[in-house]
Amino acid sequence: MFKISVLTVGDEICIGQVVNTNAAWIATECTQLGCRVAAHSIIGDEKQEITEELKRLLGFSDFVIITGGLGPTHDDVTKDALCEFFDDTLVLHEPTLHFLTNLLLRRGLALSERNKTQAFLPSKCRVITNFRGTAPGMMFERDGKTIISLPGVPAEMQGIMTEFVLPYIAELSRGKECVSYRTLLTTGITEANLADLIGEPAEFLESGTLAFLPSYQGARLRIGVRGTSAEEIDAKIARIEEVIRNRAGKFIFGTDDDSLVSVAARLLVERGETIAVAESCTGGLLGAALTDIAGSSSYFQGGVITYSNNSKESELGVNRETLVKFGAVSGETVEEMAIAVCLKFKAVYGIAISGTAGPGGGSADKPVGTVWIALASSGDVISRKFIFGSDRRINRERTVGAALAMLMEKLRGK
Amino acid sequence: MFKISVLTVGDEICIGQVVNTNAAWIATECTQLGCRVAAHSIIGDEKQEITEELKRLLGFSDFVIITGGLGPTHDDVTKDALCEFFDDTLVLHEPTLHFLTNLLLRRGLALSERNKTQAFLPSKCRVITNFRGTAPGMMFERDGKTIISLPGVPAEMQGIMTEFVLPYIAELSRGKECVSYRTLLTTGITEANLADLIGEPAEFLESGTLAFLPSYQGARLRIGVRGTSAEEIDAKIARIEEVIRNRAGKFIFGTDDDSLVSVAARLLVERGETIAVAESCTGGLLGAALTDIAGSSSYFQGGVITYSNNSKESELGVNRETLVKFGAVSGETVEEMAIAVCLKFKAVYGIAISGTAGPGGGSADKPVGTVWIALASSGDVISRKFIFGSDRRINRERTVGAALAMLMEKLRGK
Repeated sequence: MFKISVLTVGDEICIGQVVNTNAAWIATECTQLGCRVAAHSIIGDEKQEITEELKRLLGFSDFVIITGGLGPTHDDVTKDALCEFFDDTLVLHEPTLHFLTNLLLRRGLALSERNKTQAFLPSKCRVITNFRGTAPGMMFERDGKTIISLPGVPAEMQGIMTEFVLPYIAELSRGKECVSYRTLLTTGITEANLADLIGEPAEFLESGTLAFLPSYQGARLRIGVRGTSAEEIDAKIARIEEVIRNRAGKFIFGTDDDSLVSVAARLLVERGETIAVAESCTGGLLGAALTDIAGSSSYFQGGVITYSNNSKESELGVNRETLVKFGAVSGETVEEMAIAVCLKFKAVYGIAISGTAGPGGGSADKPVGTVWIALASSGDVISRKFIFGSDRRINRERTVGAALAMLMEKLRGK
Repeated sequence: MFKISVLTVGDEICIGQVVNTNAAWIATECTQLGCRVAAHSIIGDEKQEITEELKRLLGFSDFVIITGGLGPTHDDVTKDALCEFFDDTLVLHEPTLHFLTNLLLRRGLALSERNKTQAFLPSKCRVITNFRGTAPGMMFERDGKTIISLPGVPAEMQGIMTEFVLPYIAELSRGKECVSYRTLLTTGITEANLADLIGEPAEFLESGTLAFLPSYQGARLRIGVRGTSAEEIDAKIARIEEVIRNRAGKFIFGTDDDSLVSVAARLLVERGETIAVAESCTGGLLGAALTDIAGSSSYFQGGVITYSNNSKESELGVNRETLVKFGAVSGETVEEMAIAVCLKFKAVYGIAISGTAGPGGGSADKPVGTVWIALASSGDVISRKFIFGSDRRINRERTVGAALAMLMEKLRGK
């Protein structure tokens, strides 16, 4: 197995001010190449800690990827730490100076002294051009192991990884034993019920692994196997997947990078069908989810964010009587909204949401977290009530998940 | 200094399938108590790796918080690893069994054998009740150091942390030297220009630190100081903050947990003003951002998601001639949209967005990443053109950031 470790440098990550999405992105990409991500480590911007941690990770890794600490301000110390670790010094790297001058010129800026320091790089490293920013990547080798240092800005890190580092890792790890995963995505069943339905994994896993992962959009099942060839791996995964599909297939709507949105989008496009949304407590979050993927204009017609009772009447023609008698958070209201938004945007499906996201606004019979969702299609409309918790953000996310699950059920039930 | 380390256990985190938001949340809370978060570490669900990593972290930490691996399925091994580490065995914990039976009863479920295993806990631990789920927390002590193990489900982990662990840490760390941070949020200036404006930090930082953090909503400046009393810390921070505000105050719109949305919301509520949105390529993301905080119904009137040219005409009355002559992605179109949405929702401010988020849909004169944003208020309207990059998600996020920055500029300029 080719083992990779990810070292994230930055006080902002260490103290929790910034969530470490870089490490997750790198790990996902390396895992897809069949490598084993052995460990992640996050430390502050301290020279000594960086060198000590690098030494430790090299103890059990073939490849260490460092991100962060390469900026032009005084608090960035990764380059100095690498010089110390490799007993090296910073020298002016002419091609980088040339590149930086041109990059800033195109932006109408002159090269400042501060930016010029970014062209000074350790003499022993192989410089990796960063086409998206001012801090280049660096590659070092020692005792047959490789160390890569990249900027922490996600788009810059991802660019260098995609164009240089991942192809390089693919080459280095060629022919070694690989680990490979396949994730089955379910909706409409809890993690524990899914586990009971599937039964004792040891009976069908052979040497593979099976993990259960909960999420607001449904439980996921991750199959993992090892092997040295694609054929061997594919065959092992197929055997396990078949057993699981035989037992829980009707809850499985997609695999791997699929999501409720991407699968729903595929089905809508295949059928030439369209959708529109009317949102209250989610304020646009469902529309944002449905348009998160490229090409969404072929199925997403549009939507209205009717946050007030007034706008539910003026924009969607919800009857005042309905609002007064049943309230804005009711099956009656969301059903009228869903039918109206369908007609307004001439869409095949209309989804409407109304609820109390919290933390305020609840009442005895409609506690905070109460959400009604309706789904209309060609004259037919259904609505469902959900009672989530007291956290506003989680309630909004779970509402989007529930609305997408209702859509998926409808699309798959056809 | 009271040193805390965070150990996250879970293959799904290690391979990058799930982003480690738990560690960021824990680190933020512990930092707010004045503790130093020394390191984060993420490893897979392997018994031996858990015990080894726990030993290493205890070498330099007073307190280790472990999350994950406590679920009821076979792939959860943290409890076994803790038994091994503390040379302990699992015993039935009657209060937990009682609690679990009642918890499931309230949900209309019987206690399954699988859930019953969650009431078996190491005999040497102090059990911490988890009021939100089936996996209890555990506390161990050794050589004056504390080890806490918590479930990985964020809401459950946060509940136990808030109700038990954080008050406990506050007590343990009382009287020790603290580190404290204050973050100044800026908009309308780049990180490098901000650094030049502020000048050499060593001249005014005394023993404090200053970090520059870029983001899509503007550069942030984080001041850090150490001290043993709140008075000492507050005075040190105030001295540094004053210098920075004297030099860059006009770019600073908020502090710490503020955001463009929260500050804009505060200003809108203070003035009794309202806002509405008309979104194209962001599909509801700006509306979602503006309604992300509690009480948003007092300033957010509503919005329309006009994804097609048709709906820009039918919902907002944009002139067909404007769409034909200048295109949907133009200053002319967004200005008409912004004025129309203001009138439609009787709002003081109207923001309109139209752009090509990508990856497809660009042209020679309007490349992918071209976005027009307009801001209308009482008859007056301004529009700006932005050229972002080729990544759809980043373009959408940057668009929301740019729209909020325009709103902030307008609100602060008054």
